[in-house]
Amino acid sequence: MGEFGLIAALARWLPPGPAELVGIGDDAAVLAAPDGRVVATTDFLLEGQHFRRDWSGAADVGGKAAARSLADIAAMGAVPTALLVALAAPPDLPVSWARELAAGLAAECARAGASVAGGDTARAAAVLLAVTGLGDLAGRAPVLRSGAAPGDLVAVAGRLGHAAAGLALLSAGLKDGPMVAAHLRPQPPYDAGPEAAGLGATAMIDVSDGLLADLGHVAGASRVLIDVDSARLRPGDRLLAAARAVAGARHDDARTSGDAPAPPAGEDPGQAMAWVLAGGEDHALAATFPPGTRLPSRWAVIGQVRSGQGVVVDGRPWAHPPGWDHFAQAGPASG
Amino acid sequence: MGEFGLIAALARWLPPGPAELVGIGDDAAVLAAPDGRVVATTDFLLEGQHFRRDWSGAADVGGKAAARSLADIAAMGAVPTALLVALAAPPDLPVSWARELAAGLAAECARAGASVAGGDTARAAAVLLAVTGLGDLAGRAPVLRSGAAPGDLVAVAGRLGHAAAGLALLSAGLKDGPMVAAHLRPQPPYDAGPEAAGLGATAMIDVSDGLLADLGHVAGASRVLIDVDSARLRPGDRLLAAARAVAGARHDDARTSGDAPAPPAGEDPGQAMAWVLAGGEDHALAATFPPGTRLPSRWAVIGQVRSGQGVVVDGRPWAHPPGWDHFAQAGPASG
Repeated sequence: MGEFGLIAALARWLPPGPAELVGIGDDAAVLAAPDGRVVATTDFLLEGQHFRRDWSGAADVGGKAAARSLADIAAMGAVPTALLVALAAPPDLPVSWARELAAGLAAECARAGASVAGGDTARAAAVLLAVTGLGDLAGRAPVLRSGAAPGDLVAVAGRLGHAAAGLALLSAGLKDGPMVAAHLRPQPPYDAGPEAAGLGATAMIDVSDGLLADLGHVAGASRVLIDVDSARLRPGDRLLAAARAVAGARHDDARTSGDAPAPPAGEDPGQAMAWVLAGGEDHALAATFPPGTRLPSRWAVIGQVRSGQGVVVDGRPWAHPPGWDHFAQAGPASG
Repeated sequence: MGEFGLIAALARWLPPGPAELVGIGDDAAVLAAPDGRVVATTDFLLEGQHFRRDWSGAADVGGKAAARSLADIAAMGAVPTALLVALAAPPDLPVSWARELAAGLAAECARAGASVAGGDTARAAAVLLAVTGLGDLAGRAPVLRSGAAPGDLVAVAGRLGHAAAGLALLSAGLKDGPMVAAHLRPQPPYDAGPEAAGLGATAMIDVSDGLLADLGHVAGASRVLIDVDSARLRPGDRLLAAARAVAGARHDDARTSGDAPAPPAGEDPGQAMAWVLAGGEDHALAATFPPGTRLPSRWAVIGQVRSGQGVVVDGRPWAHPPGWDHFAQAGPASG
């Protein structure tokens, strides 16, 4: 399938959305921007860095690529309207894989109310996507990283630590379960972004690098201290079970290889808490709100903004536990 | 220089533009879309396929990456407003190279009235850019590929064949001159796009794959025949000189290697004409206009739209001359 064949096929597999005035097939797309402004972001999803084709199916890859950009749009307080997808792939990529990729892109777009309106294709040794998301603010001010003020509440909507737990399970050779699904197919709560803007959020970010790292971006841009309350972030039963499973697999590995003393198997609440605080790629939304804001139940208050600089947990700096693998958890350089 | 360092540096090197309400550094950019619609396109520029780092300086790469997307915006009849740049690069890429790349992006944006408003960075084995262009229609209808009608004039603004001649010169080991500069740094006539829309253009495309190939897209989308008048496309002296230089270099090569009979050196008007008709990447604009439209001098009438299907030259199908290298001229799959 050549380039024009691939583009024509993708156009058939990708249903048009409500914002598409001109869709795939011309020099450029034309999209409704009723607000008179457009929110725009671009993100890479690279094979070998952000996904592995032996772990992620093509639909997973499409879903994850879409989620990364759509979550950035939501984190501005905007409603996603469209994606542009630049896809580079090996020439022997099966047509079925491209079709599943398109299905994954379309499904995640549909969750957010958007559509794939255009893109580009090229040859490359590995699969690579660069996805641009566009969105509409519906008359609201964008929610930046820089507006948090001392006294504000810090709240989160969406999952924390699930994708990191799933990656750890996959790395340990364990393939099933909801945490693995969360890693392969993040489900950001897109509509919580405009909701937060409507509630008067003073700052917002999507949790792609890890809760503390991303709150650090807010703290830096807002020149404030963010104090996270660990009692509000206790890992749930499924995260604790995942931590036990990973510890068990490492214990078994170490016993089998005989290279080193086996680490203790069993409960490891520190590992689960580390996933919550430092695991990225769930694309939860973290926002700050003026004191006294009444938040819907999906927004969990997890801390407070104070005068100062940086991010602390229970008033103290937090450090990764021994054995934390920065590379595996945080993925590659990516904005 | 890590990811956040690179992003911070790029932000310093890339001046904000008039459409940027929120620029580099948040989850997403916010751009003015005064028309209530936004024109959007994404294009790859890949090392080894679209450029070679031993031929193109970093500023050339930035300029070319910007030009590909900005020309697509202009070809819709829109004014470019902003770019988002996804840049993947080897970890040992010199800082000076990134700085020059940013300078090239900024310079080409400035030619078009736009700016770089956001992007992403990642690690990769080779340099790779995926550039999204955004633009504003200022109340006009977009000029699609599908509106050409029998009787319309076909006209071109900008250069044809220069980039292809430059690539042929570089491939022959000849590095200097205006054709090489045209290949390394295309200069699309961006403002001719909105101008054509204002003059009532019925269809438009940017010449990225080659004049006949791109007119073929217009003919296909409009279900018409386009008849190009070769007498209006005679190669100029500089293209003829480039054809002589390339033929001379091939002659010398063949004599030196002794592998095959040397091709004749000297005049080759067929080669120069082939560059004009089939060479891509100058990003000229080709448009159709209602009969009788009075065109400004930079729009050269080169043919006519008739009933039928496809593209002909002087009423007949045109074939590439013997020895035409599709791969070297057309580059990779790219929309």
